[in-house]
Amino acid sequence: MGESALYWIIPIAGVAAILFALYLARDVLSRDTGTQAMVDVADTIREGADAFVKRQYTTIGLLALVASVIIGVIIALVEGPAVADVPSLAGVPIGVLTAIAFLVGAGCSMLSGIIGMQVSIRANVRTASAARRSLVEAVQVAMRGGAVSGLLVVSLSLLGVWLVFTLFQVFVGGVTVEQAPFLIVGFSFGASFVALFAQLGGGIYTKAADVGSDLVGKVEAGIPEDDPRNAGVIADLVGDNVGDCAGRGADLFESTAAENIGAMILGVAVYKIAIDMGWPNPSAWIFFPLVVRAFGLLATIVAMFFIRGKETENPMNILNRGYWVVTLLSVVGLAFVTSQMMQTGGTVTNGLPTWVWFFLAGIVGLATSVAFVYITQFYTAGGYRPVREIAEASRTGPATNIISGTAVGYETTAVTALTIGAALIASHWLGSQANLVNSNGQNVGGIFGTAVATMGMLMTTAYILAMDTFGPITDNAGGIAEFSRAEAGAREITDRLDAVGNTTKALTKGYAIASASLAAFLLFSAYLDKVNLILGNQIKAGVPGVQLLNAVNLADVNVFVAALIGAMLAYFFSSLAIRAVGKTAQAIIVEVRRQFREIPGIMDYTGRPDYARVVDITTVAALREMVAPGLVAVATPILVGLLLGYQAVAGMLMVGTIAGVLLATVLNNGGGAWDNAKKYIESGHLKDEDGNVLGKGSDAHAAAVVGDTVGDPFKDTAGPSLHVLVKLLATITLVMAPLFFR
Amino acid sequence: MGESALYWIIPIAGVAAILFALYLARDVLSRDTGTQAMVDVADTIREGADAFVKRQYTTIGLLALVASVIIGVIIALVEGPAVADVPSLAGVPIGVLTAIAFLVGAGCSMLSGIIGMQVSIRANVRTASAARRSLVEAVQVAMRGGAVSGLLVVSLSLLGVWLVFTLFQVFVGGVTVEQAPFLIVGFSFGASFVALFAQLGGGIYTKAADVGSDLVGKVEAGIPEDDPRNAGVIADLVGDNVGDCAGRGADLFESTAAENIGAMILGVAVYKIAIDMGWPNPSAWIFFPLVVRAFGLLATIVAMFFIRGKETENPMNILNRGYWVVTLLSVVGLAFVTSQMMQTGGTVTNGLPTWVWFFLAGIVGLATSVAFVYITQFYTAGGYRPVREIAEASRTGPATNIISGTAVGYETTAVTALTIGAALIASHWLGSQANLVNSNGQNVGGIFGTAVATMGMLMTTAYILAMDTFGPITDNAGGIAEFSRAEAGAREITDRLDAVGNTTKALTKGYAIASASLAAFLLFSAYLDKVNLILGNQIKAGVPGVQLLNAVNLADVNVFVAALIGAMLAYFFSSLAIRAVGKTAQAIIVEVRRQFREIPGIMDYTGRPDYARVVDITTVAALREMVAPGLVAVATPILVGLLLGYQAVAGMLMVGTIAGVLLATVLNNGGGAWDNAKKYIESGHLKDEDGNVLGKGSDAHAAAVVGDTVGDPFKDTAGPSLHVLVKLLATITLVMAPLFFR
Repeated sequence: MGESALYWIIPIAGVAAILFALYLARDVLSRDTGTQAMVDVADTIREGADAFVKRQYTTIGLLALVASVIIGVIIALVEGPAVADVPSLAGVPIGVLTAIAFLVGAGCSMLSGIIGMQVSIRANVRTASAARRSLVEAVQVAMRGGAVSGLLVVSLSLLGVWLVFTLFQVFVGGVTVEQAPFLIVGFSFGASFVALFAQLGGGIYTKAADVGSDLVGKVEAGIPEDDPRNAGVIADLVGDNVGDCAGRGADLFESTAAENIGAMILGVAVYKIAIDMGWPNPSAWIFFPLVVRAFGLLATIVAMFFIRGKETENPMNILNRGYWVVTLLSVVGLAFVTSQMMQTGGTVTNGLPTWVWFFLAGIVGLATSVAFVYITQFYTAGGYRPVREIAEASRTGPATNIISGTAVGYETTAVTALTIGAALIASHWLGSQANLVNSNGQNVGGIFGTAVATMGMLMTTAYILAMDTFGPITDNAGGIAEFSRAEAGAREITDRLDAVGNTTKALTKGYAIASASLAAFLLFSAYLDKVNLILGNQIKAGVPGVQLLNAVNLADVNVFVAALIGAMLAYFFSSLAIRAVGKTAQAIIVEVRRQFREIPGIMDYTGRPDYARVVDITTVAALREMVAPGLVAVATPILVGLLLGYQAVAGMLMVGTIAGVLLATVLNNGGGAWDNAKKYIESGHLKDEDGNVLGKGSDAHAAAVVGDTVGDPFKDTAGPSLHVLVKLLATITLVMAPLFFR
Repeated sequence: MGESALYWIIPIAGVAAILFALYLARDVLSRDTGTQAMVDVADTIREGADAFVKRQYTTIGLLALVASVIIGVIIALVEGPAVADVPSLAGVPIGVLTAIAFLVGAGCSMLSGIIGMQVSIRANVRTASAARRSLVEAVQVAMRGGAVSGLLVVSLSLLGVWLVFTLFQVFVGGVTVEQAPFLIVGFSFGASFVALFAQLGGGIYTKAADVGSDLVGKVEAGIPEDDPRNAGVIADLVGDNVGDCAGRGADLFESTAAENIGAMILGVAVYKIAIDMGWPNPSAWIFFPLVVRAFGLLATIVAMFFIRGKETENPMNILNRGYWVVTLLSVVGLAFVTSQMMQTGGTVTNGLPTWVWFFLAGIVGLATSVAFVYITQFYTAGGYRPVREIAEASRTGPATNIISGTAVGYETTAVTALTIGAALIASHWLGSQANLVNSNGQNVGGIFGTAVATMGMLMTTAYILAMDTFGPITDNAGGIAEFSRAEAGAREITDRLDAVGNTTKALTKGYAIASASLAAFLLFSAYLDKVNLILGNQIKAGVPGVQLLNAVNLADVNVFVAALIGAMLAYFFSSLAIRAVGKTAQAIIVEVRRQFREIPGIMDYTGRPDYARVVDITTVAALREMVAPGLVAVATPILVGLLLGYQAVAGMLMVGTIAGVLLATVLNNGGGAWDNAKKYIESGHLKDEDGNVLGKGSDAHAAAVVGDTVGDPFKDTAGPSLHVLVKLLATITLVMAPLFFR
């Protein structure tokens, strides 16, 4: 097969995935919406979500527009010929191109978020309705709804990167295929920028609604937890879609975009080697990340047909079946793509053809993905030791529950770090066996091996994201069934699906963390490549005293201080995010109090609470509160770079990533374990010394509720926002690198 | 003045400080011990403390003995001529010397811990008795008791380092003054080793006693919190001495020892320059750290005479007066020592004599110490925003209290990291202005500037430690006054002193963290110096392919993975420490339950609970539980070094330090803020919307108690143990470096 013929798989798979997503969306929308009571509740949620979408995405869009202008102007002013990665475009052209890439990245991210959420807020009621008939049908509706998000996010990210890359390379004068990857980093910065605000805003929103409506309804007014008289409750249901669905979608959109572009930048190094060696089709090394992801998309499409099973089966098994199909097809796809694209004229190194080493590195990435699925399950699912330990500790009150959950959260860093470390060392070793030596005598195969591992891991993203969105859809379906007093059988099914949804949501966070850590090394190397590209241009131009940056020296005081600040940033950012939840919850409390007081008849159900207004107020408050953490996240790397220079930024990026990934692990898994310890007690698994069940209403349950509430902003606001922070650090420094030269 | 005459100040000040400590001890012991009731309670505490001292220090002594043999054997086997820092002693001699240094370091640390605690458990009742007469007298008794600890710890560390250094240099054949500092690193490893177990064991003990006796007494048996019928309560009072007094003493003993030796190693680099330049008395650069600390000791002795004031005064002011005297005298001492010892034959660089640049770097260290005193106060003392915020959040229950406290704890990392970063960059810049260029063309003045800043900071250690030990003494005095039903006036005074003691304990932790961070860079550089000494020897010996390590490259995959593991270690170690508190508390609960059941007459006060047995059981359990975290702390750096090599160890050391320092800040300050939020509510500062006081017994108070309990193992077990972990990483890698060569 001609290698460049394979490139056509990129637009083909991207468009196929979009068409398939539309088919799934049509299929979901064609299903029945159940009873009038169900439709009423769903309409209320949709009303809230629409209010949110309108307000939040208008704000984010405006912010992105302003940011693109600022970035374009800064780049145009700063990136003169001396510090430009593509000197022929220095100044205004590079500023304009960066601003365009930024806007396209931001736009694609927003588009996939909006469409995905629009489908999920329609799939919820249809899932609830299907649950009246069949478990398998309910699973299918929810999973298809989720797959719309998953496929759209990944295909828009793939097509976006491909389109910007192709257009810049073809239509901008003087841009070679090896320069183009550096020009499109603005795309991933745009995606990060939108993800930061989508995740922060969504995360603050959903948890403020949760905590605020509980405090004003249950504690103050003395009405039940999910009572429709409390306008905050709808905000809570809207929040599930906002935080989990749109937030995680934006998170993984930027992951795939940033890691893809980073891998392409590393591919440039191999491209140069391939030219020197006279291998056929050198550009394949740059296109490889795009092609391999295209195969991942195709694998996901196939896997959707395996979402079937028996009524009596554990629904998790049905989803797992699809996951294994994607994984196995990805292995096949990986073997095909590596063997076809990594042509080295028959070179055999260390006993194996070159492509086999990289195929194995890709397998390491897929295996890491599988490992994290099981690690997360062990730490956050009921029945295993950690959750049981927290439940047992709840018997002696909230303090011991918190202490125990903290110990579990901290503990989870160990296996996380060891798995990541093993994956990095293994993929680096495999890649280095391929002996790709550049003109400076460096073996770049190792770094490229970690990039291939990352791409291998990302092959399953669309499916993972579909499972994630399955979570809020079934969560909402459960709420709708409850609100509309659906028959017991339906509620039993939605309860089971909801429990599975909690697990899949936790898995996705583990997956996001793992991919962020694996990619850290790759993005960091891309930053060094960009810095060296600029330094190389300076050397060529004869600037005196310039030498390439071959090491990021932690023993340099500026690098050490920048590393300290990077690690601190993870905590400080989380502190702001956690505090923002508290402040936004106050806004909800004030508004619901006002409604209770001023709208006549709420309490005897004759007056309808103003749901949209609470949603709007929560949105405004959440958007206001996300400004401080967002600003800190964007400003810190730029300030560090301006004050301490480009080498220090690399230290901050790397150590900030380590700190952010570990803290996110603590917050996500600690929060998940607290949540499920409460559920463990609610399902009657905890007993006192005489064997009596300590269930709902017991002191132990009250203690576990405290832990669950504490875990809420940890796992749904601060933790996921840290994923984005980590990648934002990478994309912002990639784009802003020219600023850090003095 | 002849420069080497100045060296005699080291033994003179050391011995003077010991004699002065003995004088203070005699003065304290000569005071009256109050009523018979007071003596009874104090005897019970002493009985418990003695049981503890016997058991814990026997165990630690045995562990240290075994460890010294293992270390000696490993060094003797591994440190052959190819990887020895002093090739002429390679093999058995260097193994024996290292083992001896280790044992002396361990022995001095244990000795100062034991004597200091013996005085503090006698000063408590005398403080309580003095409180019946006069506030100022009570402050004096407690502060003099504390100063015994402070002076002994610092003078034994000073004399120990000096003696081992002098003996090795004078009596071991072929050791030059520039080699000796490398030979005595075993001393600081011994000190770290003891500190690890003293702090872990003490920290687990004190908080397990606190939590366990509350759960079994207050919750289960329904008797009041500090009731003498509950044998666990005495363990709690013993724990104050064990955790705060002995633990922090061991912590700062090893800080002063390790940082001193690290600074001497860096001094070797300047020594070589001084010889090349023909400056007078080059060895002064190596002895400087010892001399400057001797002046710090003298300053502390003088300051003790300023502990006086008015009866109506805030006792904190009396202590602060002494602190400012030490600080100002240290400035004078620093000016004298730098001007006398840093003789460069009149060289003027960048407009100032060389010594002035280092004098200014020392001032940066002293200023950092002062800054941390005020930073800690802001974050943990009642009345400021952070504590008020937590108290306000307690109005809506324990969950919001925990969320708010977590946000505050995370927030404190910001100003901590920025202050440390500023101090490092400032002292490095000042030092580099002195233009100390070595034969490789490197300016080593910058690194030496950070060393001088660290030594400047350490000048006040004895006084800070005296203020710290003031804490458990006054805490105990309050307990004794309460137990013995002393007159209201006395109890009012002990309450005021107890509040001040809480502040001084928090300050000391801030100080310990700041010195650990400032020293991180210095210890890390000392490690690199040792590695390069070995590599240099290999180059001289003609080993092919060896080159000096000029950078620790974070972009190297092994270094990155080691850094990831180092950061993870901080969390994992804390997880084990926090969990150990829970398990040990269980042992106490079981024993107190047994006593209630089996010893007749406890409940009607006719039977005496078996205090010593609870203390003993707690000790055994705490010592058992400290094994896992202790082992992890010791084994991880060695395993990383064996698997990933010496450069990776440097990365682990550095990023592990960053992570450990920040997590300790979170745990210490979060815990301190929770504690004082409870006290804030108890003193009636929190009001509801109608202005009614929400005090003791309110729901807000109950919520604050949850936060306080959660904070206990954070701030008194995990946080302080992390200080030791960070320094252990440095000393263990310094000693074990030869193992990491392959």
